[in-house]
Amino acid sequence: MSRIDGRTAEELRPVTIERGWSKHAEGSVLVSFGDTRVLCTASLTEGVPRWRKGSGEGWVTAEYAMLPRSTNTRGDRESVRGRIGGRTHEISRLIGRSLRAVVDYKALGENTIVLDCDVLQADGGTRTAAITGAYVALADAVAWAQERKLIKSKAQPLSGGVSAVSVGIVDGTPMLDLRYEEDVRAQTDMNVVCTFDGRFVEVQGTAEGAPFAREELNGLLDLAVAGCAQLDGAQRTALGR
Amino acid sequence: MSRIDGRTAEELRPVTIERGWSKHAEGSVLVSFGDTRVLCTASLTEGVPRWRKGSGEGWVTAEYAMLPRSTNTRGDRESVRGRIGGRTHEISRLIGRSLRAVVDYKALGENTIVLDCDVLQADGGTRTAAITGAYVALADAVAWAQERKLIKSKAQPLSGGVSAVSVGIVDGTPMLDLRYEEDVRAQTDMNVVCTFDGRFVEVQGTAEGAPFAREELNGLLDLAVAGCAQLDGAQRTALGR
Amino acid sequence: MSRIDGRTAEELRPVTIERGWSKHAEGSVLVSFGDTRVLCTASLTEGVPRWRKGSGEGWVTAEYAMLPRSTNTRGDRESVRGRIGGRTHEISRLIGRSLRAVVDYKALGENTIVLDCDVLQADGGTRTAAITGAYVALADAVAWAQERKLIKSKAQPLSGGVSAVSVGIVDGTPMLDLRYEEDVRAQTDMNVVCTFDGRFVEVQGTAEGAPFAREELNGLLDLAVAGCAQLDGAQRTALGR
Amino acid sequence: MSRIDGRTAEELRPVTIERGWSKHAEGSVLVSFGDTRVLCTASLTEGVPRWRKGSGEGWVTAEYAMLPRSTNTRGDRESVRGRIGGRTHEISRLIGRSLRAVVDYKALGENTIVLDCDVLQADGGTRTAAITGAYVALADAVAWAQERKLIKSKAQPLSGGVSAVSVGIVDGTPMLDLRYEEDVRAQTDMNVVCTFDGRFVEVQGTAEGAPFAREELNGLLDLAVAGCAQLDGAQRTALGR
Amino acid sequence: MSRIDGRTAEELRPVTIERGWSKHAEGSVLVSFGDTRVLCTASLTEGVPRWRKGSGEGWVTAEYAMLPRSTNTRGDRESVRGRIGGRTHEISRLIGRSLRAVVDYKALGENTIVLDCDVLQADGGTRTAAITGAYVALADAVAWAQERKLIKSKAQPLSGGVSAVSVGIVDGTPMLDLRYEEDVRAQTDMNVVCTFDGRFVEVQGTAEGAPFAREELNGLLDLAVAGCAQLDGAQRTALGR
Amino acid sequence: MSRIDGRTAEELRPVTIERGWSKHAEGSVLVSFGDTRVLCTASLTEGVPRWRKGSGEGWVTAEYAMLPRSTNTRGDRESVRGRIGGRTHEISRLIGRSLRAVVDYKALGENTIVLDCDVLQADGGTRTAAITGAYVALADAVAWAQERKLIKSKAQPLSGGVSAVSVGIVDGTPMLDLRYEEDVRAQTDMNVVCTFDGRFVEVQGTAEGAPFAREELNGLLDLAVAGCAQLDGAQRTALGR
Repeated sequence: MSRIDGRTAEELRPVTIERGWSKHAEGSVLVSFGDTRVLCTASLTEGVPRWRKGSGEGWVTAEYAMLPRSTNTRGDRESVRGRIGGRTHEISRLIGRSLRAVVDYKALGENTIVLDCDVLQADGGTRTAAITGAYVALADAVAWAQERKLIKSKAQPLSGGVSAVSVGIVDGTPMLDLRYEEDVRAQTDMNVVCTFDGRFVEVQGTAEGAPFAREELNGLLDLAVAGCAQLDGAQRTALGR
Repeated sequence: MSRIDGRTAEELRPVTIERGWSKHAEGSVLVSFGDTRVLCTASLTEGVPRWRKGSGEGWVTAEYAMLPRSTNTRGDRESVRGRIGGRTHEISRLIGRSLRAVVDYKALGENTIVLDCDVLQADGGTRTAAITGAYVALADAVAWAQERKLIKSKAQPLSGGVSAVSVGIVDGTPMLDLRYEEDVRAQTDMNVVCTFDGRFVEVQGTAEGAPFAREELNGLLDLAVAGCAQLDGAQRTALGR
Repeated sequence: MSRIDGRTAEELRPVTIERGWSKHAEGSVLVSFGDTRVLCTASLTEGVPRWRKGSGEGWVTAEYAMLPRSTNTRGDRESVRGRIGGRTHEISRLIGRSLRAVVDYKALGENTIVLDCDVLQADGGTRTAAITGAYVALADAVAWAQERKLIKSKAQPLSGGVSAVSVGIVDGTPMLDLRYEEDVRAQTDMNVVCTFDGRFVEVQGTAEGAPFAREELNGLLDLAVAGCAQLDGAQRTALGR
Repeated sequence: MSRIDGRTAEELRPVTIERGWSKHAEGSVLVSFGDTRVLCTASLTEGVPRWRKGSGEGWVTAEYAMLPRSTNTRGDRESVRGRIGGRTHEISRLIGRSLRAVVDYKALGENTIVLDCDVLQADGGTRTAAITGAYVALADAVAWAQERKLIKSKAQPLSGGVSAVSVGIVDGTPMLDLRYEEDVRAQTDMNVVCTFDGRFVEVQGTAEGAPFAREELNGLLDLAVAGCAQLDGAQRTALGR
Repeated sequence: MSRIDGRTAEELRPVTIERGWSKHAEGSVLVSFGDTRVLCTASLTEGVPRWRKGSGEGWVTAEYAMLPRSTNTRGDRESVRGRIGGRTHEISRLIGRSLRAVVDYKALGENTIVLDCDVLQADGGTRTAAITGAYVALADAVAWAQERKLIKSKAQPLSGGVSAVSVGIVDGTPMLDLRYEEDVRAQTDMNVVCTFDGRFVEVQGTAEGAPFAREELNGLLDLAVAGCAQLDGAQRTALGR
Repeated sequence: MSRIDGRTAEELRPVTIERGWSKHAEGSVLVSFGDTRVLCTASLTEGVPRWRKGSGEGWVTAEYAMLPRSTNTRGDRESVRGRIGGRTHEISRLIGRSLRAVVDYKALGENTIVLDCDVLQADGGTRTAAITGAYVALADAVAWAQERKLIKSKAQPLSGGVSAVSVGIVDGTPMLDLRYEEDVRAQTDMNVVCTFDGRFVEVQGTAEGAPFAREELNGLLDLAVAGCAQLDGAQRTALGR
């Protein structure tokens, strides 16, 4: 059974990772998973939040947002509504946790890195594209700081790559990297964040329609692990490793 | 290896489900998982939100909150800060999705049920206790409405029970139903929501410390499914089924 | 003329004061005036707000809130609306002032005690129940701190008890401790806060319907003073004095 | 014992009530109690809030605010802080209740009157000056609407005047109409709202320092009733009755 | 062609500048341009915002607001809505910039002056009246601080006067100092802020209807410069120079 | 005297206007003025705000925002702070007014177009780039709606182009299209919005340092008009006219 865009169930959309997109940020990446496009910038500042001062350890956090017309119908700006919605909060927290999983705070030293992931165009998988792109921006910001001796530790602050992909059961078939139209029709929807060596950082599966069985979960995890391995390759290529 | 409170790794804390706790709500439950105590009320009103009017279908939603001194140190009230935090949003949405997984909107008819889950005392697992208790309050509200013919469908609005439990890897050992002290020390923390027949509604696993391998995930899921089966029993007992 | 629940006009509802309700708080009380149930916790922290630092004096403040379904119809959460309503503000301030009236700041030393009064179930008189219960929680928190030498003064930080009761003119008759249904029908509604020795801390009378004459005011005050004396007894019993 | 400004304990400050201060409002008054100056405008619009539609009854409400530099030291604007403080809420509600006590909603018909009381200069007693002035603005707005037949009832919408004054025990002496410096030093502070015939609409007494005894309360009420009688006279004079 | 109020196109409305309106503020002015009345207070405090500490330089800022019934129909309070509107922000910023243009920060020393401009009655030109009045209040606050040696510099903190006026093209004719009714009908609306010597601090012209040509702009600027010269005279007279 | 980037004082930075940047919006443009890059999307929906219903006329509005790391140092998100800043408000309003100046509401019919201008990278002149780009996005959205017969009028909804440019006096020299570094050093800063035929829609000049004389204003306007003429050409080229 072929998909809307002709992909097989196990296939990712075309992935591009464009580094150095912004002249201001210490690291910046325009990542695309098909038509989903996310601008990820890493802002490094010396110093850490008050609760971490004097610890010798750094901090990494993330903020996610969508431009109002990144989607098919225009959404209200959260700044205009005066409050951040639950979904935005949830995704910002997910991105932050995912990246922190590969950070060695001691090696980072008392520096703070904020990852801003702004969705310029959305077509499903914005959070997974954001994590995948933000890792590359983070790596660039770390390298930038190492060059300038803001990071002095000999240990590497990043223990390896982290990437993410969505999987879901659409019309009874497990599929990798859902587009928006597939996402809407999925009975089960799962976002999986993996490290470079195929271990899990986050596994978030939700039954949108009917509850899912253990075997279905297993099938989805297999797809996701394979997808993340490919994304890890794309990150390495982008970083010239 | 025994736990702080003498439980084995596969053991739940004592669970109590006290129905009819409030004289006002259509359904109300004081649920406790050990020292975690959550007051769950179900408020049923005729009618549905605007976007659903005329559909013949009902709606179920949830709000979660913690009393300021439900925790070891007092937290600021979200009403005083003027905004709801990301964690609160995330959990409210999780509870709502979990309960909606067992609701037949057609059978519910154009009625809305709001589940309020207020944590009176917290000791780990507040969201899983909330889901488990809220299901019982929901069942009571549905029965209340059926008696009064507000729900007229012959089909049952609830397709079966839903319950939730936390699992995690603490000091290298997978454990069921974490207390706060265990939760803090867990390398991996997972919340699992199951239907009465052991299928999954939500699986949310997070590597707090090190990423987790596939076998670890499997071990945690085994524990969680067994825990939810016991909670399903407790719900049935409480409901006199 | 007998009342809905068979009480005489001068009679309080059954009052219970359950200490030690929460394992986390330094003082905690579940107080009930009939079906009105308020959870009062006292949180003591060392130190005082900035404007009081170095004064050698402590501070006591209070926050009042209602659970959304503590009432007959569900109310919106103030955290969700993003602002605290006028009534909540007014009552929080009243509780704080009432308790501060019996506090010797010098003897308390540079400690801060926050009283959280959360209404779990409402049936009239929530603010008066809150004050009456909060005093007991406050006394427990003070004793807790004295044991731990956080309060070092030999002088007692509390000069004696404080309690509160509502009175009102219902169908022309002055009545003590109004239930919700009576409160709604009252032409005049008054909340009175008294010290253990029958002096006034607060007197707040409002003509809901017709203005009230001096003799009516006097009759209400007589009722209230007698009611507070009984509540003072209940507090002493609870505290084992 | 004479007061800072030479008054006796039973004496009001000079009171002025200047009608027609604004060309836009249906009723407007600049009221002063000594150096306290409050601009009260009454805005009448046809129609009532949604919850009152079709009832044939009107509605009256009030909003109180202070200009930032109406006080000795500049206060932050509540619009800038993004939230209304508890004191503002409390006073707005008090003014609204006080005026509603003399309104016959049926006679008013489905019209809404909003009283805005903005303190231009504060020197104690701003809420009592506001109530006293707002009544006159309200009377003017009612007359304006009667002339234009927006109010058609033959019954008078206002049952008589309402005025307010502060009293307090300063240095052991009960005093009428406290200035700011006296207010700060008062052990007991009370605001009393009376109708033209000396009955009470609101009695709000607070022990700022020591609790107060029944006789003290009685002394204060005597002073307040006498003060309100004088204010009632000033209102009549202003209205040319 | 004569105007609604009989003025010629080049004529200002009657301007009054009443100093010392408030007993609390260091400088205070009630300014009127015809029926537009703005209360301007200058609050001087020692010290500067954090970002300016230790610079030896002062700071001047402004806040503008309208009383709810200063206009023909009542507007909601921004404090009640919980956010400041765009127009308020824009005007507050304009007033602040205009006054800062004549301030020598070094000569002011580390003092902060806040200008509060509260519109008591609006009839067009509130922002220009505010700037014109605020300058006088500012001058008074500076003199007050010089007398008290809070400002120690021998240099004058104010380099000369600043005033503002509106101009616009109404029914094809350029006119000075528009009233509300004229403002509403203007095709082009311009606010011009000038120093005492006829140079520009701000020029803000907006085509409300049709775009305007260079000659029209020139005509409006001529009118405005002449108007500001008259306002400069009124300021000098008020200040007794 | 040559500028940082080698331009003459009368020269624009390289301008690019890339249409069709987003697949979702009815019109979308990525505009750049040198390193300043703004994504402008036009969202057309049928219907108009409530206050305009039944008028047969359309509406056009705009929202401006900056990505947090579009600038040299990261700024807080306005959604996180919970309120929109004054500068954002001011620019959003300016963009909306500028575009409305060339819109024929009757010809547009009851359709609403929202222009979102999100700054991806900032280097001075973000508001002028936004207006210039938004006009092209607006033209595309209008054409889109004409093709689909959502706009039925034979009259053209847009009366001609509108563009904007900044000018300023830097080190005594009037310069066109300021970069950030020049903007910071400018004594006078002016934004000018012109129609295709060189008439003015907005003229906003501000003395950042010293007030400016009439001749200086004239010099700046000459520069701006010439700059807008070039931008008008770039818009025509982009639109293939």
